[in-house]
Amino acid sequence: MAAPHDDCIFCKIIAGDIPCFKLLEDERVLAFMDINPFNDGHCLVIPKAHAENLHAAADDDLAACIAAAKRVAGAVERAVAPDGINLVQANGVGAGQSVFHFHIHVFPRRAGDGAMLNWRQEPGDMARIGELADEIRAAMG
Amino acid sequence: MAAPHDDCIFCKIIAGDIPCFKLLEDERVLAFMDINPFNDGHCLVIPKAHAENLHAAADDDLAACIAAAKRVAGAVERAVAPDGINLVQANGVGAGQSVFHFHIHVFPRRAGDGAMLNWRQEPGDMARIGELADEIRAAMG
Repeated sequence: MAAPHDDCIFCKIIAGDIPCFKLLEDERVLAFMDINPFNDGHCLVIPKAHAENLHAAADDDLAACIAAAKRVAGAVERAVAPDGINLVQANGVGAGQSVFHFHIHVFPRRAGDGAMLNWRQEPGDMARIGELADEIRAAMG
Repeated sequence: MAAPHDDCIFCKIIAGDIPCFKLLEDERVLAFMDINPFNDGHCLVIPKAHAENLHAAADDDLAACIAAAKRVAGAVERAVAPDGINLVQANGVGAGQSVFHFHIHVFPRRAGDGAMLNWRQEPGDMARIGELADEIRAAMG
């Protein structure tokens, strides 16, 4: 497992140095309430191994996190009966990441909550999309 | 594998009955360009087995999808150099789900793109959060 980072608030939560409202814990993951909730039932799933973001996280930890997110989302669904649930995960300041330890938000939605995760959907330029697909495939490595 | 659903556009894409700009394919997953892109490089990762949403998807398929999303996100990062990348996944109309076959959006971000995935963060009521944690744990099953 990656060593905890001294300046990482989520590593401190995992270590028990900062308290949390724990929902689920196993050898790989921890799920707990977000204390800046957007809606009731908003919570977080994190790997215990420190990884800054999606790019840095191990596949096994990602698998454990999304399985835990499914389990927690089911419980949130039953507990608070939201109008829907989003999973949201951010990589980089430009994507809204504020804690640099990989985390998945389990984000219950309410009609009119203003979260605007429901972005506009407009048809794109097919030629441009095809060019981008070529560029992304070439960068796949 | 769950049988394809006749009325599911993603099952038709998997079957090759509807074309796509394919990025990655293996026995479990398919990644392809979103043709209603919010920003350049916006793409989708889906399991080949039909599952309506997170709650219905098999853990093995979720693991394959998030590993593929990591790989694709790395390629998007290199190909279009966004300001950040979000993973976004929707469950239910109230969360903005419009295709009822589990999918993860790999969502490149640009400064000022107006996506507003960066919701307000305000401290919550700790007593209320603790009550909700109790309710969610009780619903975990």
